Amino acid sequence: MSGASPAPGVSVPHPAPTWLPDAVASAGARLVPPGPGTDALLWFGGELDELRAALASAPGCRWVQLPSAGVDSYVDGGLLKAPGVAWTSAKGAFSRPVAEHALALTLATLRHLPERARARSWGEPTGTSLFGARVLVLGAGGIARTFLDLLAPFGTRNVVVRRRAEPVPGAERTVTTEHLHDELSRADVVVVAAALTTQTRALVGAAELSVMKPGAALVNIARGGLVDTDALVAALTSGRLGGAALDVTDPEPLPDGHPLWDLPTALVTPHTADTREMIEPLLRARIEKNLRRFVAGQTLVGVVDPVAGY
Amino acid sequence: MSGASPAPGVSVPHPAPTWLPDAVASAGARLVPPGPGTDALLWFGGELDELRAALASAPGCRWVQLPSAGVDSYVDGGLLKAPGVAWTSAKGAFSRPVAEHALALTLATLRHLPERARARSWGEPTGTSLFGARVLVLGAGGIARTFLDLLAPFGTRNVVVRRRAEPVPGAERTVTTEHLHDELSRADVVVVAAALTTQTRALVGAAELSVMKPGAALVNIARGGLVDTDALVAALTSGRLGGAALDVTDPEPLPDGHPLWDLPTALVTPHTADTREMIEPLLRARIEKNLRRFVAGQTLVGVVDPVAGY
Repeated sequence: MSGASPAPGVSVPHPAPTWLPDAVASAGARLVPPGPGTDALLWFGGELDELRAALASAPGCRWVQLPSAGVDSYVDGGLLKAPGVAWTSAKGAFSRPVAEHALALTLATLRHLPERARARSWGEPTGTSLFGARVLVLGAGGIARTFLDLLAPFGTRNVVVRRRAEPVPGAERTVTTEHLHDELSRADVVVVAAALTTQTRALVGAAELSVMKPGAALVNIARGGLVDTDALVAALTSGRLGGAALDVTDPEPLPDGHPLWDLPTALVTPHTADTREMIEPLLRARIEKNLRRFVAGQTLVGVVDPVAGY
Repeated sequence: MSGASPAPGVSVPHPAPTWLPDAVASAGARLVPPGPGTDALLWFGGELDELRAALASAPGCRWVQLPSAGVDSYVDGGLLKAPGVAWTSAKGAFSRPVAEHALALTLATLRHLPERARARSWGEPTGTSLFGARVLVLGAGGIARTFLDLLAPFGTRNVVVRRRAEPVPGAERTVTTEHLHDELSRADVVVVAAALTTQTRALVGAAELSVMKPGAALVNIARGGLVDTDALVAALTSGRLGGAALDVTDPEPLPDGHPLWDLPTALVTPHTADTREMIEPLLRARIEKNLRRFVAGQTLVGVVDPVAGY
């Protein structure tokens, strides 16, 4: 390899998974402590101050890989601003388990499974079918797209709401956020799968819940802050909404004694759409791919737009 | 229409749905009271004695349409024996909502939704993903086939157990019942979608549950009698099974105080896979089709094999 550039230095400020040294070596890079020899930082979670310190010590760093799909906490923490640094998230890598969880929550809500799980007695036939239902998906990222794939056999009529009205496979229509209210009034199921940004915070608030079709179901597998929790509690308490299933909440974790725990038509899962066990092999594959691409000077996968915030 | 045969006489011993008279007339048949002018009987449920009496009064009856997909109660009641009479069930007509319910129960069990619905507090990340799981389907009728369609986007590895080893679309392998134990030992999810016959009663008993993969999920959307309830309670109590979700039970309705109501890993829905509201349009379409075919002398859809019992 004489004449070749030296192997890039990759630093992992925090304890790394056991497979990481092999992945770095296989890609043709070297593990180095955070410092002047650092070309890339791989971050597996921990205190943001630690990440800031590592970055500050590594003036030659050109790439930071983050471990999650959503990066709102890094944006809120003032990161993603360093000039000349490409930030990649795991966006798209965990779409399958999260989309699966969205379908699990959708079907559970339509089929009244929360009520049945709490029942101690036989009951009357209730529930509705997903076949042919009108589904509104907020967001058009990897999770939204995979969710639409899972819906395909159900013959649902799908509409996507996103920033720009570019078509999304599996959706009859794609509309911009200004048409959100119109679409909410027609949907049997609304699935929140958007990134949390300053623009999307409380995207589903009291006004949005009030125009939803009576009896409709709301599912959130994205970020708790996308839905106004107090307004949701009111909409469920009034019986206007048919049900809501949330894998993410605001605040999160949802505190003991919160009214959502006691509402018969609410279901809360503790941010388990993608458990560590589910994402470990997916994150590994993503990082191995990005390491190879970084060493080869190719475009990285999952590059975050620091202005858009995802 | 001179020279044509007279319009066949169709009798409905019990109160009929409001759309029935139009359906009969549109098909070119006539509604007649049960008696010598009866060529076909449409049965929408009620006491079996009433059906027996109607049949006895109608010696020229050549067709009886039943309203359900499973016909075990009619077989048990000694019906389906009259010579020269074709019996049709609704088999295949309700496959979509029932297969959907099977997927809802499968995902709910894998994602630990029953435990979460009962929780009043945030929890630890648990649950497993359906993506790539090994799924064993007992039965190869319309519900089983539609369920396999719904599984397609999950990339599951599916095996079907049926009476004859003919291939089923979407299944890697189709095996006969004698290989049931081998297959049970490998499956992450076992879905019971078979007809209840003298051969399949308690198809999943203590011996079958004892060879299932530890932590596996069992779903029954077919008939309660296919699973030995006491053995299932024992398998759930011991923690050997990961969970069970049942839309049908033995006995049914499941009585108050039954241990299944209190098991944290069990979920019971009250035979709501296909509610009246869901099946009404599907049954109507099936009956309209069969009326047209009967009048035209064509083969009927959903003919029951009285020996096989489905």
